[in-house]
Amino acid sequence: MIRVGIYNENVHEKLDENVAMVYPEGIHGQLAAFLGAEEDMEIVRCYTLETINDITEEELTGIDVMLWWGHMAHHKVEDEAVQKVKNAVLMGMGLIVLHSGHHSKIFRSLMGTTCNLTWREDGDFERVWVVNPAHPITRGIGRFFYLPEVETYGEPFAIPEPDEVVFIGGYEGGEVFRSGCTFHRENGRIFYFQPGHETFPIYYDPNVQTVIKNAVRWANPVFRSQALDCPHVEKPGKD
Amino acid sequence: MIRVGIYNENVHEKLDENVAMVYPEGIHGQLAAFLGAEEDMEIVRCYTLETINDITEEELTGIDVMLWWGHMAHHKVEDEAVQKVKNAVLMGMGLIVLHSGHHSKIFRSLMGTTCNLTWREDGDFERVWVVNPAHPITRGIGRFFYLPEVETYGEPFAIPEPDEVVFIGGYEGGEVFRSGCTFHRENGRIFYFQPGHETFPIYYDPNVQTVIKNAVRWANPVFRSQALDCPHVEKPGKD
Amino acid sequence: MIRVGIYNENVHEKLDENVAMVYPEGIHGQLAAFLGAEEDMEIVRCYTLETINDITEEELTGIDVMLWWGHMAHHKVEDEAVQKVKNAVLMGMGLIVLHSGHHSKIFRSLMGTTCNLTWREDGDFERVWVVNPAHPITRGIGRFFYLPEVETYGEPFAIPEPDEVVFIGGYEGGEVFRSGCTFHRENGRIFYFQPGHETFPIYYDPNVQTVIKNAVRWANPVFRSQALDCPHVEKPGKD
Amino acid sequence: MIRVGIYNENVHEKLDENVAMVYPEGIHGQLAAFLGAEEDMEIVRCYTLETINDITEEELTGIDVMLWWGHMAHHKVEDEAVQKVKNAVLMGMGLIVLHSGHHSKIFRSLMGTTCNLTWREDGDFERVWVVNPAHPITRGIGRFFYLPEVETYGEPFAIPEPDEVVFIGGYEGGEVFRSGCTFHRENGRIFYFQPGHETFPIYYDPNVQTVIKNAVRWANPVFRSQALDCPHVEKPGKD
Repeated sequence: MIRVGIYNENVHEKLDENVAMVYPEGIHGQLAAFLGAEEDMEIVRCYTLETINDITEEELTGIDVMLWWGHMAHHKVEDEAVQKVKNAVLMGMGLIVLHSGHHSKIFRSLMGTTCNLTWREDGDFERVWVVNPAHPITRGIGRFFYLPEVETYGEPFAIPEPDEVVFIGGYEGGEVFRSGCTFHRENGRIFYFQPGHETFPIYYDPNVQTVIKNAVRWANPVFRSQALDCPHVEKPGKD
Repeated sequence: MIRVGIYNENVHEKLDENVAMVYPEGIHGQLAAFLGAEEDMEIVRCYTLETINDITEEELTGIDVMLWWGHMAHHKVEDEAVQKVKNAVLMGMGLIVLHSGHHSKIFRSLMGTTCNLTWREDGDFERVWVVNPAHPITRGIGRFFYLPEVETYGEPFAIPEPDEVVFIGGYEGGEVFRSGCTFHRENGRIFYFQPGHETFPIYYDPNVQTVIKNAVRWANPVFRSQALDCPHVEKPGKD
Repeated sequence: MIRVGIYNENVHEKLDENVAMVYPEGIHGQLAAFLGAEEDMEIVRCYTLETINDITEEELTGIDVMLWWGHMAHHKVEDEAVQKVKNAVLMGMGLIVLHSGHHSKIFRSLMGTTCNLTWREDGDFERVWVVNPAHPITRGIGRFFYLPEVETYGEPFAIPEPDEVVFIGGYEGGEVFRSGCTFHRENGRIFYFQPGHETFPIYYDPNVQTVIKNAVRWANPVFRSQALDCPHVEKPGKD
Repeated sequence: MIRVGIYNENVHEKLDENVAMVYPEGIHGQLAAFLGAEEDMEIVRCYTLETINDITEEELTGIDVMLWWGHMAHHKVEDEAVQKVKNAVLMGMGLIVLHSGHHSKIFRSLMGTTCNLTWREDGDFERVWVVNPAHPITRGIGRFFYLPEVETYGEPFAIPEPDEVVFIGGYEGGEVFRSGCTFHRENGRIFYFQPGHETFPIYYDPNVQTVIKNAVRWANPVFRSQALDCPHVEKPGKD
């Protein structure tokens, strides 16, 4: 079983009734619903802004892959909590960063860049194109999938060169964006996935669900270290 | 002075009067015209299908950066000539591969893959978006540039992960494509650039010219080795 | 079951009785022995120089991961056979290139470079250091492993920048070498592994065996395509 | 002129008379001496722990490439100063991180990892091997250079996959280390260079000086942006 943790700040859902109508159980609720239905996954815990700052190292040890959705309240996630999550990633926990999570402290901290981009909210359609059809995250997806209404993100996306560009999005208005990118930092695998604006029912889309399920399986650690250290060593011998 | 060599197969120009009208001096003629006008560049020689198979190692030693445009006649460039050009690249000569040159023997041989893609000829417009605004190949280009009529190329583009994705194209019909990519192979720098269908006046476009001029300067070798060897060595000492 | 194919040219074994004493069943025999003993692997076929040129596309379809050991007779493997193996890799077959296989036609063709290096045969010991302890190919290996007698390979190793450097070797005489490197080319995963000189019993070493078994599991394709094509497409709609 | 800034914490020099004997003007003094003697470089300012926390954005605008040496006092460089330097790098300032600077806040922050490694202080000799002889940072260096006494660093070095591994060090006691690595983060180029323990006269070595001079020229920005932003944009037109 892959032990899945979910963070969703859950602020838009409380402030905006349109969002609440799309996600009555919160974005985290919908993510938990379709991931929790998979036979090889269990939802360990959903965190919101009200609880994320109390996350513990022990809890993180029990999570194999964490999803991260945030937007308005990135700055309210405390540095100490971010550092704990970051350490867990460096020791091997997988991390799936969704949509506006590009500006979260955890993603910026792992990338080392601003993760800036350009954006428009005109309800454009998006085609998400498969760039790397051999990648396990694309299993079950054809040449592309179509989303009727999204928030538009555009290049330049200020990230380090990804390990692999898996998806590139093309929008109705003409922008393009590296919509699916993989990275690894020490033992942890990271996937950034662009779709997910709060006012559209993106996380009900079957293709989006397929990608996120694939990504959870891909990010599930093959190995998890016990410590992050910089040891003094003895001169090596034969073993 | 950057010594520039140009290969253009020059077959469409002879077979199709529409192409001949766009490029009365051949595609190579137009490339030579705008590059040769630069103060720091001189056109050493233009090769066509009629002459490329006689190219010599000595001639290649006198070329700093070579441009390559081919389409119908890739298979008529002999393996021996390709090997000479490849060796020159590995020793440091820069190579700019244009448009349908994605399927040339020289590009495939340097990539190790098929360099396949999807394509349509519907005269779509293309926006070529800057992904990496710090890259010297993007100097003088804004967020994107617009080409009113192009051949459409689509992902997946079967290349190894590029060193840098510099441009991503977005087409009127919705496709996306990594339209500008850099690679290095041993001492040689390689830039693939998508625009350039023979029936549209692409190489008269000021932005396209800016990109190609930038690319020639970027690919100009900082170092050129004299040999490709695999030497037996003595046990190292102090120098 | 992972279906494993093995190519070993099997020439040294016939010409040099010292090699024959180390590998009485050929290098391929020893590789087949320890891989065939794994519960999740079966050896489909061992090829030697006498049979490799008859390899068929159908046979390749039945191989998930192929190992490649060659040295004296790289040039006797015909281009047609190499092309079939290359196509199989691009469609998803894994490839493990061993030691002097760095100069094989198949490896050079996939890399696009000469794959040159420097070398000495002084029976140096080597320590093979783990650079990336999170990589599945390093499972079961400590900080490094020690090989008492090897052929020395040295940098520069003329390969494209690897996806991941997994091992770096350090030799008694002082050279260093990127001894374990991963690449992917289209659907296929490739691992180059330096240890394996024919006159030393390298493939009896437990750590070397662990690495090769890990590499076979890592290179086992998640997806295999049916064709390498460059299709004309219609303008995309919604699916 | 390349405008060079230097940070050296300058603490060892005050606490340890052995270090003070090697570097009577501080490590920064010696770096400034050999860089300042180059015709195309001018030393804008040397910072020490006593002044680095007062560094201003305006000063950083006047620096093209900054060198960074720290060890004992990484934690005393305030987060605000680090953020200013980081922003300057992301906007295009080059950064050369030396030796124990691997654990500096600025390097960790740009890498997104711990930058841990293993280490010994036994006065081993090191050979620094050229992995990429085409790289401008290796101009003037042969196959390797020899340093008679260094601090030993060993893999695994917990960094993201570098853009290019330029040097690999091999030590008397057997360790290996990626001693020279390049990265880019947004507009800024970064070079990490391992040699430089405070108790050995490393920065008097001609090869070390050649590498650092080459690195300054390589990291000198081709472009510097004025802002780090994430703009709302209008739907694109034709330009």
